[in-house]
Amino acid sequence: MRHLLSTRDLSKDDAILLLDTAAQMAATQSREIKKLPTLRGRTVVNLFFEDSTRTRISFETAAKRLSADVINFSAKGSSVSKGESLKDTALTLHAMGADAVVVRHWASGAPHKLAHAGWLDAAVLNAGDGTHQHPTQALLDAFTIRRHLVGLRGGAGDGRQDGTGADLAGLRVAIVGDVLHSRVARSNVHLLHTLGAEVTLVSPPTLLPVGVETWPCRTSYDLDATLAGWQPDAVMMLRVQRERMSGGAGAFFPSPLEYTRRYGLDGRRLALLPGHAIVMHPGPMNRGLEISAEAADSARSVIVEQVANGVAVRMAALYLLLAGERDAAGAAPSVPTHPEGTAL
Amino acid sequence: MRHLLSTRDLSKDDAILLLDTAAQMAATQSREIKKLPTLRGRTVVNLFFEDSTRTRISFETAAKRLSADVINFSAKGSSVSKGESLKDTALTLHAMGADAVVVRHWASGAPHKLAHAGWLDAAVLNAGDGTHQHPTQALLDAFTIRRHLVGLRGGAGDGRQDGTGADLAGLRVAIVGDVLHSRVARSNVHLLHTLGAEVTLVSPPTLLPVGVETWPCRTSYDLDATLAGWQPDAVMMLRVQRERMSGGAGAFFPSPLEYTRRYGLDGRRLALLPGHAIVMHPGPMNRGLEISAEAADSARSVIVEQVANGVAVRMAALYLLLAGERDAAGAAPSVPTHPEGTAL
Amino acid sequence: MRHLLSTRDLSKDDAILLLDTAAQMAATQSREIKKLPTLRGRTVVNLFFEDSTRTRISFETAAKRLSADVINFSAKGSSVSKGESLKDTALTLHAMGADAVVVRHWASGAPHKLAHAGWLDAAVLNAGDGTHQHPTQALLDAFTIRRHLVGLRGGAGDGRQDGTGADLAGLRVAIVGDVLHSRVARSNVHLLHTLGAEVTLVSPPTLLPVGVETWPCRTSYDLDATLAGWQPDAVMMLRVQRERMSGGAGAFFPSPLEYTRRYGLDGRRLALLPGHAIVMHPGPMNRGLEISAEAADSARSVIVEQVANGVAVRMAALYLLLAGERDAAGAAPSVPTHPEGTAL
Repeated sequence: MRHLLSTRDLSKDDAILLLDTAAQMAATQSREIKKLPTLRGRTVVNLFFEDSTRTRISFETAAKRLSADVINFSAKGSSVSKGESLKDTALTLHAMGADAVVVRHWASGAPHKLAHAGWLDAAVLNAGDGTHQHPTQALLDAFTIRRHLVGLRGGAGDGRQDGTGADLAGLRVAIVGDVLHSRVARSNVHLLHTLGAEVTLVSPPTLLPVGVETWPCRTSYDLDATLAGWQPDAVMMLRVQRERMSGGAGAFFPSPLEYTRRYGLDGRRLALLPGHAIVMHPGPMNRGLEISAEAADSARSVIVEQVANGVAVRMAALYLLLAGERDAAGAAPSVPTHPEGTAL
Repeated sequence: MRHLLSTRDLSKDDAILLLDTAAQMAATQSREIKKLPTLRGRTVVNLFFEDSTRTRISFETAAKRLSADVINFSAKGSSVSKGESLKDTALTLHAMGADAVVVRHWASGAPHKLAHAGWLDAAVLNAGDGTHQHPTQALLDAFTIRRHLVGLRGGAGDGRQDGTGADLAGLRVAIVGDVLHSRVARSNVHLLHTLGAEVTLVSPPTLLPVGVETWPCRTSYDLDATLAGWQPDAVMMLRVQRERMSGGAGAFFPSPLEYTRRYGLDGRRLALLPGHAIVMHPGPMNRGLEISAEAADSARSVIVEQVANGVAVRMAALYLLLAGERDAAGAAPSVPTHPEGTAL
Repeated sequence: MRHLLSTRDLSKDDAILLLDTAAQMAATQSREIKKLPTLRGRTVVNLFFEDSTRTRISFETAAKRLSADVINFSAKGSSVSKGESLKDTALTLHAMGADAVVVRHWASGAPHKLAHAGWLDAAVLNAGDGTHQHPTQALLDAFTIRRHLVGLRGGAGDGRQDGTGADLAGLRVAIVGDVLHSRVARSNVHLLHTLGAEVTLVSPPTLLPVGVETWPCRTSYDLDATLAGWQPDAVMMLRVQRERMSGGAGAFFPSPLEYTRRYGLDGRRLALLPGHAIVMHPGPMNRGLEISAEAADSARSVIVEQVANGVAVRMAALYLLLAGERDAAGAAPSVPTHPEGTAL
C-alpha cells in the first residue's frame, strides 16, 4: 500500500491488516500517556478543500499521537481553492517535503489524481472526496463492527476478544438514508463486501444512485421491513444534509417530518432489531431528524466509540503508509509499544 | 480541583495554590529555554465558539511550554456552532482522548455544562462564557496585583519578594467600565473578595447589573470621587465593546466622547491615585476611549505584564489539573524545574 | 543580524552567509528524517495580517523542522487587524515570550516598525509587507540561481558543486511583469545587485514605478528584445494579480490576452534563451496568463525547486537569528547535522 484512496482498492488481507494494526493502536490509546514516537520527524499535511472540523482533528490527533509534525492547509477561499491549481499545490507540498497528505476535496477523484499524477512523493490519504469515497470512515466502521460483533462472540476462533485476524463473514449491515450523495455509504458497501458481510441499503427511491443494482448489496425502500424482516446485526444511519432538503418541488428529499417518519431511527424501530444489534452514525448527528435522542444515546449505540476508533484507524493508516514500508523483510510491521513522553 | 470554571468555586487555599504555582511557572519563563516536559503526551483542545485570538494563543502557548499537544477547534461557523450539539461535540472530544478542553462560549454556563453533564472525562478550563466568568483572567489579575503590591512591600512576611503564600488582604481595587456585560468584572469581584481585597465597581448606572448590591463589593457612578477619595491600590479598566455603543436612544452607553470624559483613565486621573497604585487592563485596549495612551504607557501600567502573567497562570492551571492529580500523597505538587530542550 | 526586514539591509557577506547556511539546511532536507533539534523550546509566531497560505506553511515547516513551537496568529478580521493596534499586538507577543515573529502585513514598513519601535525583543522576519519587501523570497531566488548557475559550472572556484561561498557576479536576470506592485521584484533587484548580478526589469510602461531609474538595474518594455538580445541566464516571471486587471479605462493593465501576448512566457520565447538559462516564478502561477504550461513544466523550470529552497532559506534565517547569536566568539555558526527523532 502506498496510498489509502478507496476501499475498492483494498484486498481482504489489506483490510484485515489495517484493522489489526488499528487494534494495536487502540490498545495504546487507553494509556494515560497516549503518544508514540513512531513518526517523529515526519510531516503530515492536512489539505482541506472543504471544511470538516471533525475529520481534520481526528487525523491531526492521530498524527500527533504518533509524534508527527502536522501542518494544516485549509485551501478553502485561498488562491488554491480552484481545481486547476491542484497540480501546483501538490508540487508545493512535494517541495516542502510532506511525507503524507491527508486530502479532503469537493471533487470526486481529486485524491486519486493527487496520488497518481506524478506530482508528489508523499502518501495520500483520502479524507473524503465529493460523493465518492471516505475510506477511513469505512475502516473505523468495520473496526467497530468487528470489535462488537466478532470480538465479543469470539469469532476470531482463537480466543482473542477483539476480533483480531477475523473478517465480518455472515454479518448483516443496514445502511439507511441519502445513499445518493453519501461517500460513507459507497465506502462501506465495498469494504463490508470485501470483509464478507452482507449489506442492505435503505433509502427513498429518489436517493438511490443510478447503477446501484451493480453494487454488491441489496436495496430497500422500507426501513421497518428491513429491520423486522432481515434482522441486521448493525444499523448505520447516514447524516442528512439539511441544505439538500431546502429545494422546491423537484427536490430529492421528502420533508423533514416525512423523512423522520419513514427513515428515522427511533425507540420503536430499535425494538425491531435483534438483541445484539448495534446502532452507528458517522456524525455529526441531526438529533430528531435521522436519529432520535433515544436511539443515539441507547445502550446499543456505538456512535461515541466510532469516534475513538477513528483515531486508532487513522493512526494505523499513517503508520502502515509511513513507517511500515521500512520493514525490508516484508513482514507485517509490529506496532511499537513503548510510549513517548515522561510524566514527572 | 477537577476543572477551572468560575472563581466562585475557588477557596482561598485553591486560589493561593494557583497563584503560587503560577509564580513557579513564571520563574521558568524568564529562561532562554522556556519549555518544560511536564505534559508531554497530553492533548489539550482549544474549543472556541467565539473568536478570541489573544486568549487562544495564551492558552496555546501555555500548553506548548508544558510540552502538551494542542488541537485548535474553532467551532464558529462549523456544524457544531449551534448550542444543541454541545453534547455531541463533548462526546467527540472525549472519544478522541482529550486530556483538557479549554472552552470559550457565547453562552454563560456552557463550560459548566461541559464539565458536569457526564459527557467528558477531561479537565475543563473556562476561557470565557457569555457575561459570566473568565477565571484565568481574574487569576492573572490577582497574580499581577500580588506581585506588585504584596511582593514588593514584602507582604508575605517571610522575605519572599514575589508574594508567595500571601493573600490580598487590605488592598483596594477599582474596576471601571461596562460591568453589566463583563465576565472579567464578575470573575475579579469574587476572586478578589476571596483573597481579602476590597473592590469598588465604577460604572454608569445603566451598565451596572441588576442585583449588584448582593455582590461582595461597593459601587460608584463617579470615577473621580473613587480615585481621589477611596485611594485604590489598583485600577482595572474594562474594555468597551464598541458595538454596544452603536445603539439608538435606548442604548446603554453614553457617546464615546461622553464615556471618555466620565469614565476614561487619563493623565489627570492618574495623578489622583496614590504613588504606588497600578493601572490594569485585560486587553485589547481602545486607546483614546477607556484609556489614554499616556495612562496605558505610563510607569504605573502593568498591562503588558498582565499578558505575560496570563501564560504563567494558564500553565499553572493546566499543570494542577492534569499533572497535580498524580501526587498520591495529596501534597501540593512541586513544579519541575529541569527545562525541556537542548540548545546546541 | 537581529532581524530580516529588507534585502537592502544585507551586506554581501550577510547574504552569502544566509545562502551558505541555507545550503547546509538543504542538505539535511534530503534525509528521511528531516528534523533538527536546534530550536527546541523556542516559540515562533506567524503573525499574518494578510492571507498567504504558501508563505505561512513554508515558515511553519521551516520552524517545525528546527523543532521550534509554532503559534499561528491570523490577525485578519480580528480586533488586531487595524493598524493602530500593531503596538499592542507587539507588546502582547513580547509578553508571551515569542522568540521570533514572522510578519506579513498589507502596510509597507509594518515589519520595520515592529522590529525597531522598542515594543518587542523577538527577532522579526518580514514575510511580505505591502509593495515593499519580501526578503526570504529574494533569498530563495538567489539560492536557486546560485545552485544552478554557479554551483553547476563550478563557479565557487574550489570544486564545491553547490556554489557555497560564491556570489552571482556576471549573471544576468530578467524580472518580468507587474513591477509596480511587486515586493518580489524590489527585494530581488537589491539582493541580486548586492550579489553582483545584473538585472533587467521588463514591464508595460504603466507597471513600472516612479523612480525606477534610481534602482540598480535596467528596464525594458520589450520582452522579446530582452530575451533574444540580452540573453539572460535566468528569467523570473512575476505573478499577475487578476484583481488588478478588472479595472475600467484607467486600469494599469492591458487585457489578459494582450498581457499574455506581450509579457507571457511560452515555448517560443523559451527558445530565445541561452541553453543554460532557467525559468523562475514565485508562485502561485496563473498558468496560461503570465506563463504557459509548457514553460512552467519545461526542463528549464526550477519553480518547484524554488519552493523547496524556500524552506531551507527560512530554516537558515530562523537559525541565524535565533541560534546563531549564541556563538560568543562571533564565528559563523555551524549547522547541527545530527538529526532529531528516532524511527523505530
